[in-house]
Parts: sequence; C-alpha cells; structure tokens
Amino acid sequence: MNKTEPRTLAGFMELLPNEQILFNQMKETIEKTYQKFGFLPLDTPNIELSEVLLAKAGGETEKQIYRFTKGETDLSLRFDLTVPLSKYVAKNYGNLSFPFRRYQIGKVYRGEKTQKGRFREFYQCDIDIIGDGELETIHDAELPSIIYTIFKELGFDSFTICINNRKILNGLFESLGQKENAVEILRIIDKIDKIGKEAIIEELTKLKIKDTEIEKIISFIEIDGTSHEKIRELENLGIENEIYVKGVEELKQVIKNIELFGVPDSNFKVDLTIARGLDYYTGTVYETFLNDYRELGSVCSGGRYENLAEYYTDKKLPGVGISIGLTRLFYKLNELNLIKAKQKSISQVLIIPMIEDLEKPITLATQLRKLGIKTEVYLNNKKLKAKFKYADKLKIPYVIVIGEDEIATHTVNIKNMATGEEKKVKLSASEIIKEIK
Amino acid sequence: MNKTEPRTLAGFMELLPNEQILFNQMKETIEKTYQKFGFLPLDTPNIELSEVLLAKAGGETEKQIYRFTKGETDLSLRFDLTVPLSKYVAKNYGNLSFPFRRYQIGKVYRGEKTQKGRFREFYQCDIDIIGDGELETIHDAELPSIIYTIFKELGFDSFTICINNRKILNGLFESLGQKENAVEILRIIDKIDKIGKEAIIEELTKLKIKDTEIEKIISFIEIDGTSHEKIRELENLGIENEIYVKGVEELKQVIKNIELFGVPDSNFKVDLTIARGLDYYTGTVYETFLNDYRELGSVCSGGRYENLAEYYTDKKLPGVGISIGLTRLFYKLNELNLIKAKQKSISQVLIIPMIEDLEKPITLATQLRKLGIKTEVYLNNKKLKAKFKYADKLKIPYVIVIGEDEIATHTVNIKNMATGEEKKVKLSASEIIKEIK
Repeated sequence: MNKTEPRTLAGFMELLPNEQILFNQMKETIEKTYQKFGFLPLDTPNIELSEVLLAKAGGETEKQIYRFTKGETDLSLRFDLTVPLSKYVAKNYGNLSFPFRRYQIGKVYRGEKTQKGRFREFYQCDIDIIGDGELETIHDAELPSIIYTIFKELGFDSFTICINNRKILNGLFESLGQKENAVEILRIIDKIDKIGKEAIIEELTKLKIKDTEIEKIISFIEIDGTSHEKIRELENLGIENEIYVKGVEELKQVIKNIELFGVPDSNFKVDLTIARGLDYYTGTVYETFLNDYRELGSVCSGGRYENLAEYYTDKKLPGVGISIGLTRLFYKLNELNLIKAKQKSISQVLIIPMIEDLEKPITLATQLRKLGIKTEVYLNNKKLKAKFKYADKLKIPYVIVIGEDEIATHTVNIKNMATGEEKKVKLSASEIIKEIK
Repeated sequence: MNKTEPRTLAGFMELLPNEQILFNQMKETIEKTYQKFGFLPLDTPNIELSEVLLAKAGGETEKQIYRFTKGETDLSLRFDLTVPLSKYVAKNYGNLSFPFRRYQIGKVYRGEKTQKGRFREFYQCDIDIIGDGELETIHDAELPSIIYTIFKELGFDSFTICINNRKILNGLFESLGQKENAVEILRIIDKIDKIGKEAIIEELTKLKIKDTEIEKIISFIEIDGTSHEKIRELENLGIENEIYVKGVEELKQVIKNIELFGVPDSNFKVDLTIARGLDYYTGTVYETFLNDYRELGSVCSGGRYENLAEYYTDKKLPGVGISIGLTRLFYKLNELNLIKAKQKSISQVLIIPMIEDLEKPITLATQLRKLGIKTEVYLNNKKLKAKFKYADKLKIPYVIVIGEDEIATHTVNIKNMATGEEKKVKLSASEIIKEIK
C-alpha cells in the first residue's frame, strides 16, 4: 500500500504525552481559578456564520480569518472568544443573569505567518464580567486578583500586573487638541518598550504634532514612582479635561480596591504606557509581565469596554475581561523549562503482574481506583525489564510487582521510582495507599 | 448602527450556563475515569492537511467533510479522533511507549443533514490502547470495565455492554461460502433491532444468498441464553472454520476476564447481532445500551482493530478502543431529564455586601477561596431582592449577607437557598466552612 507521510500542519501545536500532561495542568489551574471566583463556563462553536463573526472585524484580523463555504453557507472559524461572547450575550440576553460572569477556554484560529512560537490554532483562556446597562468600577479591581491567583498557582512569584486607564490618555490627548490622533498616538506610545523614546518622538513628529505637545506626552509617559505617587502626579498635572479627571479617579479607585482583593503591592503597579493596541478598551487596561522574562511580552491582558455587543443589539452591555494566550505561554515557558509540574504522569501506580492468573493484580487495581488512585496494570506480555522501562518513560511514581511469592506471602514491595527505594507492605489497597499518599 | 442578528449555526450546540455546567460535569466524569485507568491525554489540531486526514476516507464520510483551502493549502476539519490518532502514532512512533494508552476528548465535524438531536460539531470522548506489533486479548476485557465505571459514575445502574467478536461472524460467512458478501451481510444483520427479522431475510435474499444459508445466519443470530450459554452454543454449532474457532475462543476469554475486572453480570452480555457498521473492526466489538432507553441507540461503542495506521506506516499497530459521542448523549439525556447533577452551580457561596466599605466581604471571600470554596461577591449596586434573585437563578446553594449589623456583632447568617433555612455563625471563614461542607 502507498503510504501517506503522517504530518501535522505548521503553526499547529501537537505535544508528546509528557508535555501534554504539563499543558493540561496549566489549563486546569487556570480553569479552577476562574471557577473559584464564580465564573460560569461557556462553550461556543468553533465555526460561525461569517456574517455574524465578521460583523465588526476588518483590516488585519479579517485577512487572517479561516473563511470558507460549505454548501451555500459562508463560514468562518472564530479568531477570538470575545466576538462569540458578544453574539452569545446578545442572543441569550433574556436568559442570563447580570452581572454575567463567564469563562471560556477554547481554541481560536488565525492564519498568521508561521514562525517559531507563533501559532495558527491556539487556546485562549478568557473571563469577562458583563453588566446590564452598567457595571461598577470595583469589578476592574477584582480581575487583577484573579490574575494574581493564577500566576501564583502556576508557581511564579515575581510578576507585575501593569494597570492603566484609557480615559487618562484619551483625556490628555483631548486637552492637547489631539483627539482625532488619539488612536494613532496610543498605538505609537504602546511601543515604547520595544522601540524606545527617540523612535516614539520621531513617529509622533510624523503625525505633525507640535514639539510642545510631544514634550507633554513624553513627560506624561515618564511620570515615575510608586502607584500612589503616580496617581498624585496625575492629579497635580493641572489637566482639567473631564475625561482625564474621570480616568484618574477610576484608576485611583481600582488601585485602592486591588489591595482589598489581597494582591500584594509588589505584584501590581500603575504603568501609564500601557494602552493596549486595540481601540476597543475604554477604561481600565491590564498587562501582566513575568519580571525575569519581560521578553515574553504580556502573559495576561485585558481591560474595560463600554459596550460588548453593539453590532448585535441596542442593549448597552459594558464589561471588563482578561485573556491568557495559553498555547504561546506554554510554548515559551516550556522552552525556558519554567513549568512546575504538580505531577509528571497520569497513573500514580503501575501494577506489574508476573503470573498467569491475573485475578489478584486486577482486583488490587480496581480497589485502588475506587480509593481514588489512578492505577494501571501492565497487561502486555513482556520481560520484567521492559515493564519497568515503561513505568520509567511514563514517569509513573510507584510500581508494584505481583508474582507467586507476593501472593503466597500476601505482601508486596512498593517501588518508589524516583528514589529506587522499596517498601514492603501487605497486599491490600488500604495499606498500599498509606505508603503512596 | 445597523445590527447583525446574533445567531448560531444549525447543528451546533450552544448551551445556557446551567446546562453547560451539567455538560461539563459529564465531560469531567468521563475524563477523570479515563485518567483513573492510566490513559494519557492527547490533543491534536482540529485542522489537518486533507491529504493526511483523507488518506483512507471515502464514500459517505468524505462527502460530510468540512474541506477548504487557505492560501494554497488543502485543509479539512477532523471528522473523528481515530484518524488523527493514527497519524499521531505513526508520526511519533519512536517517542511513544507501548502499549500506548491515550484518551482524547475534543470536537469533531461532520456536515450531516441537520435534524433534531443531530450535530455537525460534536464532542467525541475516545480511548484507545495501541500495541507495538501485538496487543494481548486481555485488553479487550479492560475496556468494558471503563465503560461500566463511567456509566455508574454518571448515575446509571441499568445498562448493558453488548459484546461480540467479528471473527465469529466472518468465520461463519466463510464457512457458508459467503466470504465476499461478509461486509454486506454484516451491514444488514447489524440492523436487526431497527428493521426486524423479516426485513433482514428479505435483504439477504436480495444478495442471492441461498435459503439454507440464510436460515443458518438467522439461527445463528437467534442463539439465546446467558453469555456463557451462548458461548457454549457457538462451540457446539460444529463449525470448524479456523477464524470462527479463534473468534469464539477470544470471546470466551474476554467474557471470562470482564468478570475479573469487576463488571457485574447484569451489566454485560454476549450479543451476536452486534457487528458495528464499519469494516474497520477485526475482533471484539462493543455497544452499550441504557436498558430503559434503548431508543437512544448505543451510547458507547468500539472494538478491536488489526492495524491502526496502515495508511501512514509499515509498522503493525493493533489496538482496541471505545468512543462516547458526548454531545448527542448529553442532548438526549437532558431532553429526558436524566442528568444527575453533582452540583448545579459553579459558586458555592454568594456574599452580598450591604455596606459601602467592602473590606470585610472581600476579605472573607478571599479566605473562603483559599480554603477551596468557590466564592463570589455580588458587587453591583442593586436592591437586596435582586441580589437574592441572582443567587436563585444561578442556583448558588449558600448566601451570606454582610451589613453593618453583621460587622458589629461579628456574626453572619448563612442562608441555605434550597431549604430557606438560616444558620447564625461567627464571621470567620473556618466557621462558615463547617456549616456548608
């Protein structure tokens, strides 16, 4: 028979089992944390009508869409989880309770240029809190505590949640008479970490912004100090623009309340350069950095938006949300060997029978499973050495061999595969559990 | 602004939160059980090269594929999890340990005619055990114990795992000189439950099979009694065909070993009419029925195959696997109101603050979460009644109101939302946990 070469598309992650276990543990940590804060699960189709999915999209996004027809129907694969959420909330408005707190963890698709660490299919892990008509600012302070909990649970201590408020920037530009350039200016100053101050000035000059105004923008970006000091400086800049004042007040509230939510001072700060590329956000914005690995970029971002679903409904649905790009994050952390495994295997125990009659080994496995221990029986006919090699490769922590002797004496040796130690116990599930727990 | 009507494609399941919680619990029960038996997780892309994915496919399957081009590349969405597994094992052969036990739970796509209870995007929950060159028959007896554990965990008692062996049928047909009609005959007799004996005879007659042979086929299908009695009858039929004899021997072994694996007699039986439509299976085959809801069809099916990945590799990779079509199963069980919820909400506690200063409510929530209780604070500015209505609609079991009085007396009432009972305890996370656990 002619063979087809088995291969996986470039830009599509496919892991070996040991890595998949690590990936799933990260995913589970994120999901469990979202649940701990009372977010409801959501699962929307990967495919939507193009007309619905692309109601808003345009520019770069639209070019990357996986779009195709099936029969007569124009379909697209989702490119994020926000548009499906918008559709969902608009569609099910009458059946939802507000504030609607939902999490969604799922694959999204973007036909980006393939390069190392860039994926065309990747998991996003999103939460959003959607209000019906209004949503109190206090929610903006809750999300950093969720980011904090997740990265602590993932084993990190040194990370910073950077917080800003888009109204401050928008108000500033308005006060400088640069309102119509706001989106463009934001896009430029968002790049300060990447391209530096001189390049920023150069790009702003190209926009025909006066030198005096550029100076103000730069000195604004350069406001320094603790979060509280920065807020004081913002208040003391003497800008009376209404939007600016509101933004500073919101930021002050959020910073105050973050402390209430138990995030330590060392894990968040006001960062006035954070704008988020999208013109979607209208208030608080977040980016999160691993301090020792700034080169990874933001590992969790999001913010407050005025109106989730304006393309589908007249209802005003303000919200605040964050997103973790899990596939890329996993790839980078794995490359840097930074993933702390809670467990490296699925099975906790491998039982190796060395007898014809499998009753005892299989019964023991059934009992261990009933007591909550993930247990596997090696059932293929191989030499003992090969069976141990199997346990070793799968990183199964405990191995129990059952042969004639073990059955005659009603005892077994539990071998700890990490230390090589063996411990003799009674051939009984409850005795074995005591040793491996 | 012109609004786009927010809608979801027909044949694509999208649930409200309360139903999504139930769905996810079923999914988790299945996943946890697969893990309990030591299966390794796998996650393959939803998109594959058409050339790779369709190396084998043809006929009906190919017509249903979601196939499209992106740039110059001919792509398809996966229509099952078996072909991606074949590709994966062939591709990663050198990096896997055999027997390779993997589970995969993911969405697959088939552009079937949309009708009630039929889905174009649906979850499959698969496990397979793949051997390198050979795989002992004992594994065929392990899978029914996993099916048994899952359906028990899902709250069912009255279900039957029906077991047969394709070699028995193939050997029978060979002994009747009907080898070349085997696939077609199997297809026909597989339908006995749906169309009845007379229609089966009619269809067999159309194949120009002699009446005497049809009689033998029918009397074979009608073998009755307990599993052990059926096996005895099969042995006593006097058929000496080698394949037939091997099949009976395998079936006998599997039935004997299933008992070893702890599946009660009442939950499995030999059913000689089970053939599985596919010509893919070569030995043991399974179908599972809920006895009180036979109309649902098989809720978990699978079997033994000779060679997983012959389209990709020369390696011989025999395996045995089962699959649960979760989306359809959920839909049907939900419709029949048969899903037993372990919990109906995500949050276990809703804290309702009735004061300006949120320190105490938020601190309590943080403490409860640290102790493992999923806790939500209602932060929007609403009347108390609306806040309770929120808890009620989300089916959150416990509500704690914190106002001036509660803080002054350092006590709170925990309201059990199901019974309406209130219990006064100290305003302390550890005291509260005692009450709600």
